[in-house]
Amino acid sequence: MSLRIIATGGTFDKHYDEIAGKLGFAASHLPEVIARARLTIEAELEELPLLDSLDMQDIDRQRVLAACSRAPEDAIVIIHGTDTMQDTARVLGAAPLGKTIILTGAMIPYSIQGSDAQFNFGFACGVAQVLPHGVYVAMNGRVFPWDQVQKNRSAGIFEAPPQD
Amino acid sequence: MSLRIIATGGTFDKHYDEIAGKLGFAASHLPEVIARARLTIEAELEELPLLDSLDMQDIDRQRVLAACSRAPEDAIVIIHGTDTMQDTARVLGAAPLGKTIILTGAMIPYSIQGSDAQFNFGFACGVAQVLPHGVYVAMNGRVFPWDQVQKNRSAGIFEAPPQD
Amino acid sequence: MSLRIIATGGTFDKHYDEIAGKLGFAASHLPEVIARARLTIEAELEELPLLDSLDMQDIDRQRVLAACSRAPEDAIVIIHGTDTMQDTARVLGAAPLGKTIILTGAMIPYSIQGSDAQFNFGFACGVAQVLPHGVYVAMNGRVFPWDQVQKNRSAGIFEAPPQD
Amino acid sequence: MSLRIIATGGTFDKHYDEIAGKLGFAASHLPEVIARARLTIEAELEELPLLDSLDMQDIDRQRVLAACSRAPEDAIVIIHGTDTMQDTARVLGAAPLGKTIILTGAMIPYSIQGSDAQFNFGFACGVAQVLPHGVYVAMNGRVFPWDQVQKNRSAGIFEAPPQD
Repeated sequence: MSLRIIATGGTFDKHYDEIAGKLGFAASHLPEVIARARLTIEAELEELPLLDSLDMQDIDRQRVLAACSRAPEDAIVIIHGTDTMQDTARVLGAAPLGKTIILTGAMIPYSIQGSDAQFNFGFACGVAQVLPHGVYVAMNGRVFPWDQVQKNRSAGIFEAPPQD
Repeated sequence: MSLRIIATGGTFDKHYDEIAGKLGFAASHLPEVIARARLTIEAELEELPLLDSLDMQDIDRQRVLAACSRAPEDAIVIIHGTDTMQDTARVLGAAPLGKTIILTGAMIPYSIQGSDAQFNFGFACGVAQVLPHGVYVAMNGRVFPWDQVQKNRSAGIFEAPPQD
Repeated sequence: MSLRIIATGGTFDKHYDEIAGKLGFAASHLPEVIARARLTIEAELEELPLLDSLDMQDIDRQRVLAACSRAPEDAIVIIHGTDTMQDTARVLGAAPLGKTIILTGAMIPYSIQGSDAQFNFGFACGVAQVLPHGVYVAMNGRVFPWDQVQKNRSAGIFEAPPQD
Repeated sequence: MSLRIIATGGTFDKHYDEIAGKLGFAASHLPEVIARARLTIEAELEELPLLDSLDMQDIDRQRVLAACSRAPEDAIVIIHGTDTMQDTARVLGAAPLGKTIILTGAMIPYSIQGSDAQFNFGFACGVAQVLPHGVYVAMNGRVFPWDQVQKNRSAGIFEAPPQD
């Protein structure tokens, strides 16, 4: 089993900039996060431009799609901002990728007390190895198919959309 | 989907006792660990006596087996010491439980810098929901069937035993 | 020896709001910070409204002055935002308070990895007990008299202003 | 003002050895602790052998004395185990050093959740710059002269010994 981990930014990877006095992006925390996991499976980290997912444009989602498409691995974990995770999931889900792709992120940055980042990353690394090919969102300890998920922004959780 | 989480102690849950000046057990960290995960699935925590797994006797493993057996949930995550995780896995694996049971733990306590506890817990919560019924050990980002795993103590990793 | 600790907010005490996705104020971290210090001297925490120091108005600085003035303790530590710490120091320094007052804060919030909050708080609690009456700023491991300090915002450090 | 920081081990600097499954010593945490403090004063770190203070012999205390004696700085902070801090303080206090020397340590290692290490280090760095020449122990937010301090091991705090 080998795993590709694609970093795209999002809350998970935000950094406190002490000069500006706000959260933004600097070097990814993923190398540290991965080292802590003590993986013995092969894991390849690919860093795309780190973005707040509210700033992601079509071209950014196409870049994620291209990275998934050319990856030699069958199992992919994408670290993504939560606000438009469902949109990127739809771009990937509509493509014939033939891989197991899990999008995850965090409600609290890895670098902040009480973060859910490591749990979510562990959860995603687990289900990426076991689920059948397809595109999924994994948040709140739950797996959602790419076309059956939405972020409830006022509650800060992911949920299945209401059925028609 | 609902999940039972069984705490049995181990390195994962060790606490620094500042009077004694050493690591031992006090209140479990699992309530905090679970809260950080922001689960929206049902999750029931059951705390068994917290033990160093080197101190576990047959009776302690039978207690874990009994807890798995009477659990109404189909998916169970057991937090366990790493040194005898494979022994408890064998006790559970030999029993006809008809559930998906994942044993996990940590090489560094949750309360210590650089811990793998949250990653492992997330990983276990993920695969517990997806793997077919059976007993598994999940460590180092990898899933092992209960009868094909051993701890390599000098390297500090879990691995498949050598094939005959 | 007894100590008054006055919380006014600032970077030190910022909290990540996971619904809004940004840093702001919630319950102060000072009770936790103080508990960790294992103080055996008397220490009284007084929480004023928690503000970003860029939002502090004259009335807010007058509130800090009033708190210092009515405090029964001789030694006071004020947790304050760094951007206008020197301004509040001037308001206090100009008043005949007859106490030892130390303003401190943090460049990185207490709740974020790599924070200087606890060091600064410890430093301030130390010098508050030892320095003669007066108003001081303590940052970067250094004590500044209230009228000989400025924040160098591009470098993110406190320094003595250039001499005429 | 310039400061010498002498690392001698103790609980403050303990490291979790994940292979042995217990706390011991590895590379000192002091370089990280000092970096977080964002000091703008000169600070020189000197690492002596890192020891549990219960393992310290006369020769080890003489090495600390020699380090203090040859230090060009006037202000010295010594990171030391708590169990025999008072003994080393007595060795230093009896010598005519003509410097301000503060011994401090921690009840919980720097690397463990809830540690008092950074607070104590900050406290010590503050009072080291302000107190008159002499040897002091700084713990629990309090300064003790070297010959008026004892560790109350059952309570886990430092206190003045009972008066005759």
